[in-house]
Amino acid sequence: MQPKIFASFASTHKQLLEEELRERVNKLVAPSVVKEAMLYSLEAGGKRIRPLLLFATLDAFGLDTKKGLLPAAAIEMIHTYSLIHDDLPSMDNDDLRRGKPTNHKVFGDAFAILAGDALLTYSFQLIAEIRDEDAHATTKLALIQALSQASGAEGMVGGQVADIAGEDKDLTLSDLEYIHVHKTGKLLECSVVAGAILAEATEEKIQRLSKFAYHLGLAFQIRDDILDLEGEEERIGKRVGSDAVNKKGTYPSILTLDGAKAALSEHIELAKAQLKETGLSTHMLEAITNLIETRDH
Amino acid sequence: MQPKIFASFASTHKQLLEEELRERVNKLVAPSVVKEAMLYSLEAGGKRIRPLLLFATLDAFGLDTKKGLLPAAAIEMIHTYSLIHDDLPSMDNDDLRRGKPTNHKVFGDAFAILAGDALLTYSFQLIAEIRDEDAHATTKLALIQALSQASGAEGMVGGQVADIAGEDKDLTLSDLEYIHVHKTGKLLECSVVAGAILAEATEEKIQRLSKFAYHLGLAFQIRDDILDLEGEEERIGKRVGSDAVNKKGTYPSILTLDGAKAALSEHIELAKAQLKETGLSTHMLEAITNLIETRDH
Repeated sequence: MQPKIFASFASTHKQLLEEELRERVNKLVAPSVVKEAMLYSLEAGGKRIRPLLLFATLDAFGLDTKKGLLPAAAIEMIHTYSLIHDDLPSMDNDDLRRGKPTNHKVFGDAFAILAGDALLTYSFQLIAEIRDEDAHATTKLALIQALSQASGAEGMVGGQVADIAGEDKDLTLSDLEYIHVHKTGKLLECSVVAGAILAEATEEKIQRLSKFAYHLGLAFQIRDDILDLEGEEERIGKRVGSDAVNKKGTYPSILTLDGAKAALSEHIELAKAQLKETGLSTHMLEAITNLIETRDH
Repeated sequence: MQPKIFASFASTHKQLLEEELRERVNKLVAPSVVKEAMLYSLEAGGKRIRPLLLFATLDAFGLDTKKGLLPAAAIEMIHTYSLIHDDLPSMDNDDLRRGKPTNHKVFGDAFAILAGDALLTYSFQLIAEIRDEDAHATTKLALIQALSQASGAEGMVGGQVADIAGEDKDLTLSDLEYIHVHKTGKLLECSVVAGAILAEATEEKIQRLSKFAYHLGLAFQIRDDILDLEGEEERIGKRVGSDAVNKKGTYPSILTLDGAKAALSEHIELAKAQLKETGLSTHMLEAITNLIETRDH
């Protein structure tokens, strides 16, 4: 597939998604400050990788991707709430995200926590409000079940807990994988699985797509760690020594930089192999996979 | 109805609920610290007024109250998460709740925030997992819709935002009612409405029960403010002067103590009138109403 076909797919769907997010928050009958805080982080940009995975999965099944607008918005709200809470002083204490002040820097800690809570809560309402012609009642419930499991204690929240609990400890590869599979992997996986649920796919296809997304999620995280390290090298203008490579709890620190690159390739190959086995028309999902392998930010 | 019949109804259902809460958290495959933090606050006691309202509503329709176990657990999880987040240093900064150290005092701010997030997320999963013989798929979706609306930006979270935004400001009675109707009222109302939804009640009955719960919620809050004031009098051993009565943003401060007592009686009467109009067998709901009118803690 030509990259420009995917670029157009991505920009069209990003725009649709962003309009939906804005509209859904604007229509809330709520104090304006909480709506502003919700929108501030929803509109802070980002690659919208989770929504795109969902749309691309619907595309693989030959379905109208618009069916996925509300679940995609719900997933992006959950991702956004997790960033707001993770940035808080008592968590990662980050002042900047994507070059802009973090939510609590603008709205204060209390409103940041509450804006996160509101986004998380609203996400489930959005799925309950999918039009009946876009999904059966049992399909909507399956989406809610998958989304809450992927984002709660057994998924994303559990990963964040393990990440904080593991700070300043020597992590094994298996500790590190637990953190990433849960903290970022589960919601990425759920984005693909949600598309398959909407398509009323067979259990076998859901399993394949879920494995595809599992490997994609790990590849995403390994690439992140590699970019961090290479970014650091660029910043200081020379190869970083063992200190930076050994920065705890990253793939390069455990596997070496070359080992991390090899692991990245391996997960990308495994992801593509699962995709192929689905027998679906997975051009868009492949394009996202290539993007994740080679992304430079 | 004899008070002891309600007392037995309440203690039986509290026990069932508490077992369900414990079981549901214990079965999570998640880092133990987040499960401990979730259970710590779920098991900190409390009147379980929201679950009891739900069970009492099912009883009014002559239904098996066990049908309500999962939605009741979901509502109690949402109530509990809201207490954990409200107690945080950046919100009300409370060190004690019901005589025990607050969640963040025991587990730290980060795990307290995450335990709250996990409880909120899990609550929607519980509803999606109600057995098909206990509720149709469309009924479960109606529950999720009602619960997310009652607890998000348009409900409880919106009320908490307004409460924080109104701190140290002169509140009118209408400001104060907005805060209470949203911060505590909406979830109380939802507890009753959830029972009616489970009973597949007519829209007219749902509306009546919703109005009943609206007045009950306001009565609950007014009684709270009166208890605070009288408790303060008891603590200092004499009638409190205008300073305490004028403590900002309470019913006695706006209506005087006598005015607050009159408003309490009025909301109790309005609540009972709505109940009567339902034509249901509302003994248990009446017992809860009497309890709220006369409670001393």
